[in-house]
Amino acid sequence: MKTWFKLGVSLFLYLLLGFEVSACVTGRSTGDMGIIIERASGSLLVVEHSHNKILCRVEGLGDLSHASAVYSRDQAFAYIFARDGGLSKVDLREGKVVKRIIQGGNSIGGAISQSGKYIAVSNYEPGGVKIFNSDDLTLVADIPAPIEGSDKRSKTVGLVDIPGEQFVYSSFEGNDIFKVDLTSPEKPQVTRIQNVGRQPYDALVSDDGRFYIAGLFGEDGLALVDLWEKELKAKRILNHYGKGEKKFPVYKMPHLEGWAMNRDNAFLPAIGQRQLLVLDLQNWKEETRIDVKANPVFAMAQPDGRQIWVNFAFPDNQWLQVIDAVSKKVVKTIEAGKGVLHMEFTPRGERVWVSVRNKNEVQIYDTRTLEKVSTLPAQSPSGIFFTNRAHKIGL
Amino acid sequence: MKTWFKLGVSLFLYLLLGFEVSACVTGRSTGDMGIIIERASGSLLVVEHSHNKILCRVEGLGDLSHASAVYSRDQAFAYIFARDGGLSKVDLREGKVVKRIIQGGNSIGGAISQSGKYIAVSNYEPGGVKIFNSDDLTLVADIPAPIEGSDKRSKTVGLVDIPGEQFVYSSFEGNDIFKVDLTSPEKPQVTRIQNVGRQPYDALVSDDGRFYIAGLFGEDGLALVDLWEKELKAKRILNHYGKGEKKFPVYKMPHLEGWAMNRDNAFLPAIGQRQLLVLDLQNWKEETRIDVKANPVFAMAQPDGRQIWVNFAFPDNQWLQVIDAVSKKVVKTIEAGKGVLHMEFTPRGERVWVSVRNKNEVQIYDTRTLEKVSTLPAQSPSGIFFTNRAHKIGL
Repeated sequence: MKTWFKLGVSLFLYLLLGFEVSACVTGRSTGDMGIIIERASGSLLVVEHSHNKILCRVEGLGDLSHASAVYSRDQAFAYIFARDGGLSKVDLREGKVVKRIIQGGNSIGGAISQSGKYIAVSNYEPGGVKIFNSDDLTLVADIPAPIEGSDKRSKTVGLVDIPGEQFVYSSFEGNDIFKVDLTSPEKPQVTRIQNVGRQPYDALVSDDGRFYIAGLFGEDGLALVDLWEKELKAKRILNHYGKGEKKFPVYKMPHLEGWAMNRDNAFLPAIGQRQLLVLDLQNWKEETRIDVKANPVFAMAQPDGRQIWVNFAFPDNQWLQVIDAVSKKVVKTIEAGKGVLHMEFTPRGERVWVSVRNKNEVQIYDTRTLEKVSTLPAQSPSGIFFTNRAHKIGL
Repeated sequence: MKTWFKLGVSLFLYLLLGFEVSACVTGRSTGDMGIIIERASGSLLVVEHSHNKILCRVEGLGDLSHASAVYSRDQAFAYIFARDGGLSKVDLREGKVVKRIIQGGNSIGGAISQSGKYIAVSNYEPGGVKIFNSDDLTLVADIPAPIEGSDKRSKTVGLVDIPGEQFVYSSFEGNDIFKVDLTSPEKPQVTRIQNVGRQPYDALVSDDGRFYIAGLFGEDGLALVDLWEKELKAKRILNHYGKGEKKFPVYKMPHLEGWAMNRDNAFLPAIGQRQLLVLDLQNWKEETRIDVKANPVFAMAQPDGRQIWVNFAFPDNQWLQVIDAVSKKVVKTIEAGKGVLHMEFTPRGERVWVSVRNKNEVQIYDTRTLEKVSTLPAQSPSGIFFTNRAHKIGL
């Protein structure tokens, strides 16, 4: 049955795309390339955004629901973090898996160090963070996230890279935020910030690597750490954020990586409401709210910060809205199709690629005209990741 | 004589670097690559910053004093703007000039459009801006910068790309700032902002493409345009900037691209003084001043905005200073050698490469320890440009 399905998919793509599905153009410069996660089939599409083209498909990547990716500093390789604990290294120009390991029982995401030498993965099961050599995926360090008064390891969440060969993450059961310094990888230096608030469930860092913000599942508000301070401490912000919504299960909490930030503001999904909250980044206080079509999931700022693109939770996940960052008004509402799961901007922001799962397609929009300019076939597409991420802090 | 010199240089580099000088590794992924301009010999070195290596030399690029570079969106090609009006397209992986044209008599710099389709060059002689197709360097448009009440074309300066397939530049004799929209390249849409102040001599744009700032040679202060406004207008800021320094010739004015900006502040060389001015980006007013070793030329912020690296004018150009962006104090003074001309950070900022012309070398520093970690030989090195510039707005 599965084989027939695979054959069917291959035939379908063969008919649509010709010979290019099964072979990548070896030696192509990868600066304008990327991948699209095909969550249902454990595969990914290698793409390029200069001509909006699919180059090939790579298979055998395991359970790719909620999968994410980072890139090597030369942009030759993608590292894929799969939900089943799989960590795969994919050669973009050859279109093949170079190495794949199962590094944990249940993985939630990863990051690559500033130098590109280390890959960090945060795990639900058995908890803690593992660090791997990016060349051969050998284990460099296994760092448990201790729980005060217990010998268990905590689940870790909100793992990001920051400058100085460091990573920051939060422990769900431990109520801590950790910073680990890999300057001497054989002896990682761990800094622990305790009692940041109950059950941090996700986090993000600002694009300069300075402000780390963790969402709290167990109470209202968010924990903010200014990583430029000498003595690290967590400060509570937005104390009303999450109020009355405690009974939501974790998977319904909005992703914090879905916060948009430009020079002046952060735009974040209001939990359980049809609104975006707008924060003033000078004081981290709420400045205003923007009414949107439904419950927002991701709010993503264009690279220039000029417009914010928003998608929504089921049953309203066929919609996309575009918000003007100055007037803070919705400028366009687009019905893209059921299952709008992710958006990725081209590096300088002239286009945005949108995964529309139920239509088995990726739609490409011009960010200036807000018109759809192209559509690509993909099997249940979810995350889209372009190679320019290799050069960004905090992903 | 010239041949003997060339042979000497080749032999010298052969001895130092082995076979790699004359041949690039074809097919290498270019995400971690870049070029070093060798101003005296009209050549450039192709380098990679994962292992701090020179890959090969490319020759025959004309007069490279004050040369600059941009990259194709796939990072396969560098476009070099030479002082003699030459525009060269260099294949990084092949290490060779693919095409070279003389597009004007005296060129001052260029930019690449958001889509990567167009290269714009600003010219002193015959003035105006020319637009070329980035594939084959054919002329797409020749846009004169008119001077009110004259039939001459003005010199153009401060050319930058902004989102929406647009460029912005200033006219030195015309006292205008222009925005040109290439959405329909056969019919460029030009917007003219008149009377911005006397003799704009250089400019920059903020990294989100929003704020365009031109320095004025003919009077004090700077012209600021908020490009997000519907009706574009120039506002005067820092009215004391340049006061009493009018008699400096243009080539001694500090480069405005030498302004550092992080989230909160801009750091700019005080003209003719041993100081950096610190502006508050909320109101564009002077917040404080930082005393430095000598007259600063470039002040460059690390990608994380945490530290500012400063070099200095002759006769103090052997010094480098590092400034902490929070305390606004000098944290280290380095004697690198005479002729420190340019600095370039690796994409995520763990290293900075520094051209030291008179020592014929490029020094590489760790931005965390502030120690020198490597030195590469180069003939009179000036500008250093890494390929991640392909994905940045406003260069």
